[in-house]
Amino acid sequence: MSTTQIDGVSVQTQANVYFDGKCISHSLTCADGSRKSVGVVLASELTFGTQAPEIMECVAGGCEYRLAGSDAWIRVGPGDAFKVPAHSSFDIRVQDTFHYICHYG
Amino acid sequence: MSTTQIDGVSVQTQANVYFDGKCISHSLTCADGSRKSVGVVLASELTFGTQAPEIMECVAGGCEYRLAGSDAWIRVGPGDAFKVPAHSSFDIRVQDTFHYICHYG
Repeated sequence: MSTTQIDGVSVQTQANVYFDGKCISHSLTCADGSRKSVGVVLASELTFGTQAPEIMECVAGGCEYRLAGSDAWIRVGPGDAFKVPAHSSFDIRVQDTFHYICHYG
Repeated sequence: MSTTQIDGVSVQTQANVYFDGKCISHSLTCADGSRKSVGVVLASELTFGTQAPEIMECVAGGCEYRLAGSDAWIRVGPGDAFKVPAHSSFDIRVQDTFHYICHYG
């Protein structure tokens, strides 16, 4: 069961545009002060770096990801999530669209 | 002065992807029940139809727009807004990025 809606947030109105628009997100601040973003990755193969630890939650579509130092591509779909350590990176490949929530640790 | 943040909203986590990703938005519901979306249009020339009346507010970047039935292209930048009637359309051309809030009437 994926998270379809997040309530009680402040949204930054200017989008974050990465990789020439292959990834677009909007930043959120929750009532408890925690930060998230909601975004979408279009068909592509990309590498993302992390500052804070992240939990990437798939809310629609899907992707395959590979954590830094791993050879394994792992498929995720709606309701799935994966953790990425701080100061690390992950590869992602998307065939159609990958809609996600990024929960910052 | 453009609106940099909108507080106290519910955000739909799945993005709206239009025109093969040239326009991506996330839908919001405000505390008073009104609906908005925050989105970005990448470099392109597109035509959008409306159902409800809309106010398009530029929060970053810019565009030129032309309302249905008009010959005039009008340039907008951060802090500018334009109204589009219900059941109408408008053309938009974007050279870089157009970050917007769409306020539905």
